[in-house]
Amino acid sequence: MYFELAKRMSGLEVSKLRQELRKNMERKDTIPFGFGNPAMESYPVETLKEISDVIYENEPEKFLKYGQTSGFQNLRISLLDRLNNNYSLKHDNHEVVISSGSSQAMDLIVKILCNEGDIVICESQTFNGCVNAIRSYNAIPEGIPMDESGESIDLEILEERLKKDTQKKIKMIYTIPTFHNPLGTSMPIKKREKLVELANKYKIFIFEDDPYGDLIYSGEMLPKLKSFDKEGWVIFVGSFSKNLAPAARIAYVYAHKDITEPFIAAKGDADTHTNMYWQCMADEFIRNFRFDDHIQYLKELYGKKCQLMIKKLNKYCRPHLSFIDPKGGFFITCKMDSTINHRIFMEKLLNKKVIVVPGNLMSVNGTGFEDNFRLSFASPTEEEICQGIKLIGEALEESKY
Amino acid sequence: MYFELAKRMSGLEVSKLRQELRKNMERKDTIPFGFGNPAMESYPVETLKEISDVIYENEPEKFLKYGQTSGFQNLRISLLDRLNNNYSLKHDNHEVVISSGSSQAMDLIVKILCNEGDIVICESQTFNGCVNAIRSYNAIPEGIPMDESGESIDLEILEERLKKDTQKKIKMIYTIPTFHNPLGTSMPIKKREKLVELANKYKIFIFEDDPYGDLIYSGEMLPKLKSFDKEGWVIFVGSFSKNLAPAARIAYVYAHKDITEPFIAAKGDADTHTNMYWQCMADEFIRNFRFDDHIQYLKELYGKKCQLMIKKLNKYCRPHLSFIDPKGGFFITCKMDSTINHRIFMEKLLNKKVIVVPGNLMSVNGTGFEDNFRLSFASPTEEEICQGIKLIGEALEESKY
Repeated sequence: MYFELAKRMSGLEVSKLRQELRKNMERKDTIPFGFGNPAMESYPVETLKEISDVIYENEPEKFLKYGQTSGFQNLRISLLDRLNNNYSLKHDNHEVVISSGSSQAMDLIVKILCNEGDIVICESQTFNGCVNAIRSYNAIPEGIPMDESGESIDLEILEERLKKDTQKKIKMIYTIPTFHNPLGTSMPIKKREKLVELANKYKIFIFEDDPYGDLIYSGEMLPKLKSFDKEGWVIFVGSFSKNLAPAARIAYVYAHKDITEPFIAAKGDADTHTNMYWQCMADEFIRNFRFDDHIQYLKELYGKKCQLMIKKLNKYCRPHLSFIDPKGGFFITCKMDSTINHRIFMEKLLNKKVIVVPGNLMSVNGTGFEDNFRLSFASPTEEEICQGIKLIGEALEESKY
Repeated sequence: MYFELAKRMSGLEVSKLRQELRKNMERKDTIPFGFGNPAMESYPVETLKEISDVIYENEPEKFLKYGQTSGFQNLRISLLDRLNNNYSLKHDNHEVVISSGSSQAMDLIVKILCNEGDIVICESQTFNGCVNAIRSYNAIPEGIPMDESGESIDLEILEERLKKDTQKKIKMIYTIPTFHNPLGTSMPIKKREKLVELANKYKIFIFEDDPYGDLIYSGEMLPKLKSFDKEGWVIFVGSFSKNLAPAARIAYVYAHKDITEPFIAAKGDADTHTNMYWQCMADEFIRNFRFDDHIQYLKELYGKKCQLMIKKLNKYCRPHLSFIDPKGGFFITCKMDSTINHRIFMEKLLNKKVIVVPGNLMSVNGTGFEDNFRLSFASPTEEEICQGIKLIGEALEESKY
């Protein structure tokens, strides 16, 4: 019973910490490196208004009356085309279904695949929303550490673990292979191939969470895990939360019909269908309003902020912080060296009104990684980045052992 | 595991029947007495466009960036006020939280309250979406018949059942007390009081599903079950699906904080929050665009259709059909007398392209009530009502034993 579960959860220290963090994030006078919100200037308000006028003009009943649980047919086709054109994804017996954000996709996939006590493997540092969804069904999220490169879940440890799963409790691997949250890193191509091989070999699903996939600022676009999938073990989930608007609550699942069919049944029970206004908006944007130009704009906007943050981190925070330069996405995770007292550092930071996400809150168990913190370069302004990173540098100096 | 459950469910005869019905409903050349869709002419498109222009003009970030899981604060306040002003609902330690349609409210309340094997009591004829939500968590929907009046779940049978529940497996009673789906009837005031008494006595929650509550066409407005609730056992759920637009996917839960707090936690996992565009639209509509005038328009629109359908049923279908005149909502359930072969009747009706919902599909177990069928008077035009009821009369004549 979730009721009891939620009470247990709310009693946990980690949950209190999260609530506190959220409160701080919502304060107005802070430097917002915490939230994974898109930048205010990222929203193409004028274009959206134009598109909205078009869909109100054309056939407003489309977004007012009940829609289909699987999603707006036109959008499903637009997305299939886009996945094929932009990412060379094309599989037999696959389809796109629309979900109310990636969080619903995760929630329902866990509901579909897991009994109570089943296990979902996660990267030990990961997006806590998905960890909570796993727990909400009394399934168990189990962290596997990143390997030495810091760019991939450790595939050797993973295989050892899968070998030991004689009772077949492990049902899925949840991963963010591209512009990882919180790490900002991307899994190298060889390891992608290997991970999908393991899924095939051990007959375990992979949930490829790809909200940031479009937002690449430098380097080569890496193939999706899904592109190595021959047998339908990879469930690819894309989203409009980071490249359009999070409050639209639209994401999409691209997977084999063996998955999408029970998904649609579960979604029917869960919310009948996703709001149609934003499904029509997204479809119209893709078809007639040069959506990929908007993506290009976002890449320039965020690429510039990313470079600025890296430059300022190098200037003010070396050598006490180490981090891997992200090539896309929203985040940089910084690791403090052993000269820094991370408790003191976090206190100093809060006094300076700089909000970051402590590493333990972006981990499977809510503990560990206390010498890590996540920075988002997406929502702060350039001025806030300059000022905030300088303050982080000062906090580091003030927190030495 | 829902995966297996869904496979089992899709193997069921009743699920096949539902799919077939849906296919028929979606055909264009039919008379649509099946769907619970609002009428096309019910959508206040021009007003909505005006409101949309206002919210794009005012502060579009509000409906683009991440919102709060509990819902748009302004709308929550508007709804609290509206519940108090229109229905005299006011309780200590209660709040309104927004859900993605009533279906999500039901889904999450079951998730919160039920372990696998727990029981939710339903009226034996009821909305199958909610029955499916119960099953989707491996909880058990259990039907209690309506009493002789046909207006209320049989409270004596219910109390007998509650007395026998020594293991406390029964967690909730799901009911649509006002303008019932599929029956169209409303529970009398004394029985409302008694039902809430039983909930108090046996410490069982009541899910008061009230999507049609505003849409009253004749007689006195009955007090909500919630208005008799002193101890917080009634979870009141209202919706914008029938009085604004179903594809907006907004409904709301008004309940004690002991329920809303885990609800918000579960909702965070399920879809982060409900789309903000329609939350802003609904709030603006209520505050500044005379929402209650729109409700008045709907009452006149549907009241007229309801009267017309009753008139035509009396003209063409008596004495072979009996039914209780609804005083609001969308539906009339008709019962065939014993001179009619209901199998033949359903075949004839399909040949005449009149789509109705067979009684067994609006029941807890998917069986029984084969001599019943549900008519919606909301979405068909007046012409379709006249033509369709005449065809039903003909089908009755052609289906006598």
